[in-house]
Amino acid sequence: MTGSTVRFGTGATREVGFDFADRGVKRVLVVVDPHVRDAYPGQTATESLRTAGVDFEVFDEVRCEPTDTSFQKAANLYATWPAPFREYVNPTLGRGTTPPGPLKPLIAVPTTAGTGSETTAVAVFDFEEEGVKTGIANRYLRPTLGILDPENTRTTPPAVAASAGLDVLSHALESYTARHFLRREKPENPSLRTAYQGANPISDVWAIESLRIVAQFLPRVFADADDDEARGMMLLGASYAGMGFGNAGVHLPHAMAYPVAGLVRDYRPPGFLTDHAMVPHGTSVIVHTPAVCRWTAPSAPRKHLLAAEALGAEIRGVPEEKAGELLAERVRHFMTLTEQPSGIGDFGYSAADIPKLVEGTLVQARLLKLAPHDVDAEILANLFADSLS
Amino acid sequence: MTGSTVRFGTGATREVGFDFADRGVKRVLVVVDPHVRDAYPGQTATESLRTAGVDFEVFDEVRCEPTDTSFQKAANLYATWPAPFREYVNPTLGRGTTPPGPLKPLIAVPTTAGTGSETTAVAVFDFEEEGVKTGIANRYLRPTLGILDPENTRTTPPAVAASAGLDVLSHALESYTARHFLRREKPENPSLRTAYQGANPISDVWAIESLRIVAQFLPRVFADADDDEARGMMLLGASYAGMGFGNAGVHLPHAMAYPVAGLVRDYRPPGFLTDHAMVPHGTSVIVHTPAVCRWTAPSAPRKHLLAAEALGAEIRGVPEEKAGELLAERVRHFMTLTEQPSGIGDFGYSAADIPKLVEGTLVQARLLKLAPHDVDAEILANLFADSLS
Repeated sequence: MTGSTVRFGTGATREVGFDFADRGVKRVLVVVDPHVRDAYPGQTATESLRTAGVDFEVFDEVRCEPTDTSFQKAANLYATWPAPFREYVNPTLGRGTTPPGPLKPLIAVPTTAGTGSETTAVAVFDFEEEGVKTGIANRYLRPTLGILDPENTRTTPPAVAASAGLDVLSHALESYTARHFLRREKPENPSLRTAYQGANPISDVWAIESLRIVAQFLPRVFADADDDEARGMMLLGASYAGMGFGNAGVHLPHAMAYPVAGLVRDYRPPGFLTDHAMVPHGTSVIVHTPAVCRWTAPSAPRKHLLAAEALGAEIRGVPEEKAGELLAERVRHFMTLTEQPSGIGDFGYSAADIPKLVEGTLVQARLLKLAPHDVDAEILANLFADSLS
Repeated sequence: MTGSTVRFGTGATREVGFDFADRGVKRVLVVVDPHVRDAYPGQTATESLRTAGVDFEVFDEVRCEPTDTSFQKAANLYATWPAPFREYVNPTLGRGTTPPGPLKPLIAVPTTAGTGSETTAVAVFDFEEEGVKTGIANRYLRPTLGILDPENTRTTPPAVAASAGLDVLSHALESYTARHFLRREKPENPSLRTAYQGANPISDVWAIESLRIVAQFLPRVFADADDDEARGMMLLGASYAGMGFGNAGVHLPHAMAYPVAGLVRDYRPPGFLTDHAMVPHGTSVIVHTPAVCRWTAPSAPRKHLLAAEALGAEIRGVPEEKAGELLAERVRHFMTLTEQPSGIGDFGYSAADIPKLVEGTLVQARLLKLAPHDVDAEILANLFADSLS
C-alpha cells in the first residue's frame, strides 16, 4: 500500500498558498473548471496563493470529462518529462512507460466527491482518435497532497453529486470484489509490481468503510446540498475509496464504461453544465455495476453479502447463492434514489452496438486482469446486454 | 493524514535488497537485535542485500526498550543532521526542533506486531538521566517503507507477542478516545500543526479495525505461534493502529507508562530474553488502560461502547453510563488471557511511589494535551492508584 496524504476540514483550501510556499514553489499553474473559477474553490485558492506571495497563472479551459487534447492533469507529467503522448499511456493503446523520476509538486483540490484522484496515481481521459477512454498510471502521478474542504462541494449540482457519488460506490465495490492479491502472479522484481494489486486486507478496510459512507450520506447530499456533515463525509468517502482502489484496482464496470463514454454521440446528461455530448463518468460506470455484481458473486459470495450489508441490506438468513442479486438490488436502489438512467440504452445504445463496445473493453487489459474470473468477448457481450436497461 | 507505505506478504523481506538498490543506495546499516540477527529476519534481510549487490554493515547491539545511549532508530536523524541530543527531543525535556530536511531512506522491518513504528514518525526511548521515557517526533522520522512479513514473527516468544499485541490494543483505543481534532486549536500556520491531531474520521477507521483484529487474532498468536494467518493479521493490525495513532496520537496510558518503565528497578519480565530490569513497553501501557477507560468514557460514551463491541462485547441494551466499565472489562479480559501483570504493583511500585510517577507523567506535555479531558496531578494520582492492581 502506497500512502496518500490528505488534509480534511472546512476552510482547508485557505492553506494551499502556504503549502506551496513551504515547499519552495515560486510559481504555480492553477488548473480550474471555468464554472468553479469564480466560485468559492477558485477564489479561495487564488486568494491563498496571493496572500502567501506565490506567483500563479490560471488555466480555466478545463473540459468536463477530459479528452487527450484537453487533458490537463497530465500537464505536470509531460512538462516535467517531455515525451510523445503515447509513451506514458497504459497498454495496449500506449507504451505504459514509467517516467524517470518524480514530477513537480501537485496539490489536488477536489470539487466533487467522486474520483478520489487526489489519492490515486491514475489519470483517465477520452482518447478521441481511438473512440475509447483510457489512462496513464504510474506512481509519480499521485498528488503530493489532497485538500478535502467541504466548502468546495457546497455548490455542486445534485446531478453531479449523484454521478460522482455512484463512482465512489463502484470504486469501493470493484476494489472489494477484484481478483485477490494472492491470486496474482509475483513479478520478477518489485519494480514491475503494478499499482493495482488486487483486493487485499488494506484496500478492503477502505472499501467497506466507503460503502457505509455512501449508503448513509449520498442520499443526504442529493437531497440537500447545504448538509455540511454529509458533504464532508462524502469527500472523505471518495478519498477512502481512492486509497482502496488506488492500491487494489477497479475492473469491469470501469473497463466497460470507457467505450460507453468514449463512443457516445448525442447524450446530454440532465443537470450538467456542458456544451458537448457526454456520459458523466460515475453514470457510465454504475449502469454496469448491477450486472457485474451478479457475475462476480460466485467468486466470493460472503464478501458480496458483506458489501450488500455495508450498503444497508439485511443479510441474516440470506443464502450465499442470492448474494449477487441482493447486492445488485442495493446498487439499483441508490441509482433510482438519485434519478440515474437505468442502463446504456438511455445513452442511445442498442444491441447492435454491443460488438463495438466489447471491442473497446477488450483493450483495457490492465482492468480486465483484475476481474475475479477470466473475461472474454462473449462474457462481455452478455454483461452489456444485461446493462441495456 | 500523512500516508505510510507498507508491503505485506510472506517472504516480503526477501525484497529489501532490491528496494535499496532501486533507490540508488550503495551502503546500508543493518540495525538488528542480537537474537534476531541469526534468525529468519536477520538472515533473510542480509542475504537479500548480498543478492542485490548492496554493501552493508551490521549493528547488533540493540537493546530491548532502548535508552538515550543505546537509541538506534534515531541514528539516521543524528547522522544526517548532526545536533546536540536534546535538540530534536520532544518538549519539555528537549527543544523539539524539526530537522531542516529529509533523512536517508529507512526501511523498517518489524519483528514484533506491536509498536507500528514502521508507519509512524515517532521514536521513543528511555532518557536515563531523567528517569523517564520520552521521544522524538517529526515528520521526517516516518520510514520510507515498512515490510510486513509474517515469517518475521514466527519465533516471537508468546510473552513478547502478548505485550506487543496489547500495545496495539492501547494504540487503537487511545487514538479512538483522544481529544477530537475539532476541539484542538488551529495553529498559526499549517507547518506548526503537530503530527498528533486528535481523534478524527480517518484515524477512527484504523482504530476500530485494529481493535477487531486484536480481539480475533491476539488470542490465536498467543496460543500458537505457528498460526500463519493470525501472525499476518497481527502485523497488519499493528500497522493499522500505527496509521491511526500516528496521525491522531496517544494519551494517558502511554504518558503514564513512560515513568513506570523509566523508574523500574528490579522487574524482569517472564518470557523475555533480557539481561536488565525492564517493563516491556506494551505491558507498561496496558496496566493503565482500564483505569483510563473509565475516566475517559464520559467524554464520548457511544465511542467507548463501539470500542468495547469491536473488542467482542455485546453492547445491545448497555446504558451509556456503563460504557467505561464495559470497555475496561474487555481490556482486562485480554490481559488475563495473555497472562499479564494485573497492575503497576507487580513491577514493585506502591502508593508511596505515586508522586514520583505523577511528576514523570506531567512532563509528557505532548501526550497530556491529547487526553479528552484536562489533566492535573490529582487526576493522575488517582489513575495511578487505580492502576496499582
